[in-house]
Amino acid sequence: MIKLSSISTEAPKGLKKKDLKEETAQLVARLGELHNMMYAEGKYSMLVILQGMDGSGKDGAVRNVFGDCSIAGLDLVSYKKPTEEEFAHDFLWRVHKWVPQKGMTTIFNRSHYEDILIQRVHGWIDMERVEKRMAAINAFEDLIQFDNNTLIFKFYMHISFEEQGIQLQERLDDPTKYWKHNDGDWEERKLWDKYMEAYEYAINKSTTPWHICPVDNRWYRDYFMAKTIVNALEKLEMKLPSPK
Amino acid sequence: MIKLSSISTEAPKGLKKKDLKEETAQLVARLGELHNMMYAEGKYSMLVILQGMDGSGKDGAVRNVFGDCSIAGLDLVSYKKPTEEEFAHDFLWRVHKWVPQKGMTTIFNRSHYEDILIQRVHGWIDMERVEKRMAAINAFEDLIQFDNNTLIFKFYMHISFEEQGIQLQERLDDPTKYWKHNDGDWEERKLWDKYMEAYEYAINKSTTPWHICPVDNRWYRDYFMAKTIVNALEKLEMKLPSPK
Repeated sequence: MIKLSSISTEAPKGLKKKDLKEETAQLVARLGELHNMMYAEGKYSMLVILQGMDGSGKDGAVRNVFGDCSIAGLDLVSYKKPTEEEFAHDFLWRVHKWVPQKGMTTIFNRSHYEDILIQRVHGWIDMERVEKRMAAINAFEDLIQFDNNTLIFKFYMHISFEEQGIQLQERLDDPTKYWKHNDGDWEERKLWDKYMEAYEYAINKSTTPWHICPVDNRWYRDYFMAKTIVNALEKLEMKLPSPK
Repeated sequence: MIKLSSISTEAPKGLKKKDLKEETAQLVARLGELHNMMYAEGKYSMLVILQGMDGSGKDGAVRNVFGDCSIAGLDLVSYKKPTEEEFAHDFLWRVHKWVPQKGMTTIFNRSHYEDILIQRVHGWIDMERVEKRMAAINAFEDLIQFDNNTLIFKFYMHISFEEQGIQLQERLDDPTKYWKHNDGDWEERKLWDKYMEAYEYAINKSTTPWHICPVDNRWYRDYFMAKTIVNALEKLEMKLPSPK
C-alpha cells in the first residue's frame, strides 16, 4: 500500500548532480540502442505512461529521456479533453487505438488514468464507475501485455505542492515558458489533496505496478526514468535480426 | 451449461412459415423505428455480433433483419484474416476501434471470437491463451456496456452438420451463389466437432449471454433475431428528442 506523502519528491541525499548527469547521458544513449533493437526485432513493444500534476515535468522527461531514440520507432500521444467523437465511446476507445504495434514504442502524455483522476476529483463520475473503470484498466493493460508482448512503464511524476507552485509561477515569470501558462492549472492546484487521494487509489489498485518518480530535481527524474527502462529492456536479451 | 447438440437447429414444431413471415415483417419494420429512435436520441448504442459456421446464414440475416434500418445509423464490419498491422497488435485492437458510438448500431459479421475459435481449432494458440483471451473478451464487453450504454446482442447461428452440407453444395450448384464458394470451407467442415467444442466453451464462459439462433429454416432465423432485438429495445423506453 503506497502512501505518496511518505515518499520523497526529491533526489536521494548524497547524490551529486554532476556525477548523475554523466550516468544519465550514458543511460539515455543505451536506451537509444535498445529502442533500435526493439524496432528492428519487431517482437516486443513498449508503452510508457506519464501521469502527474501540472508542472511535474512530463514534457521535459519526454525530451530528455527519449532524446536518443529514433522517431521511426517512437510515437507520442498527448491526451487532452476528449473530442465529441471520443466522448461518445467508452473511455478506453481513444487509448486502445494508439497502443504500440510490435517493435514500436508509444509514450502517453497523460492517459486513460485521467478518466479516474480529473473525472473523480470533480465529481463527474461516482465511485462505482471509478471502480468499474479501474477493473477495465487492469484488464486492458493485462491484454496488451499477454497478447502483444508490450512492456508497460507507468511513471507517476511525484512533485511536491511547493515545487508545483514554483513551476507554475515560472510559467508566469519566464517569457519562454509563458505559453504554457493556464489559469486552470491554478484552479486544479486548489484540489491537490483530492488529486493525491485519487492517484493513490489508481496506484494501489493497479495490477501492473507504477514507478513513483521523484521530480523535484529534474536531473534525478531523468536518471530515474532512464535507469528504470534500461534495466528492464536489458533483461529481454534482444538482438538485431538477420537480414531478410 | 449449454450443450449445442441438445438444442434444435430447426424452427419449433407447429410454427407456420407463412404466419411467421408476416410477423417477422412487422418486427423488422418496428426494428427500423426503434433503430431510428436510438440514432436520434444518441443515448444508447447497439452491437450485434454474428458468429456461426460457414453457410449458417450470417449475410442473409444482415440483409433481412436490418433491412428497414437507415444506413445513417448502421455500420457493418466483416472480420476476415487479420492484416499485417492488425496482427502486430493485441487481438481486440481491430475490434475495439469499430465499436459503435452513442446512437449508432454496428453489426460484426464474425468478430473477436474467431480468435478463440479458428485459432484454437487449428492449434495456433494454446488453452492458456484461450483462457486469457476469454477473460479479456468478458472485460471488453463489460466495458462497452457499462461505460457507453452499448446493448450487445450475440447470436450463435446454430446450423446442423447436414444443413451446412446442403448450403455449401448450393454454392457449387447455383451460379448466383458460386462466387461464395471456397474450397477452404469444405476443409473447415472436417473440423466440425472441434469447432462445436470451441463454440461451447465461448458460449459458456461468456459473462454477456449468447442467443442460440436456430438457422436451418431461414425464415425462423429472421424471426428469432428480429424478435430478440425488438423485445430488448422496447424495454429502453426510448423517445425522439426535442429539436435543438
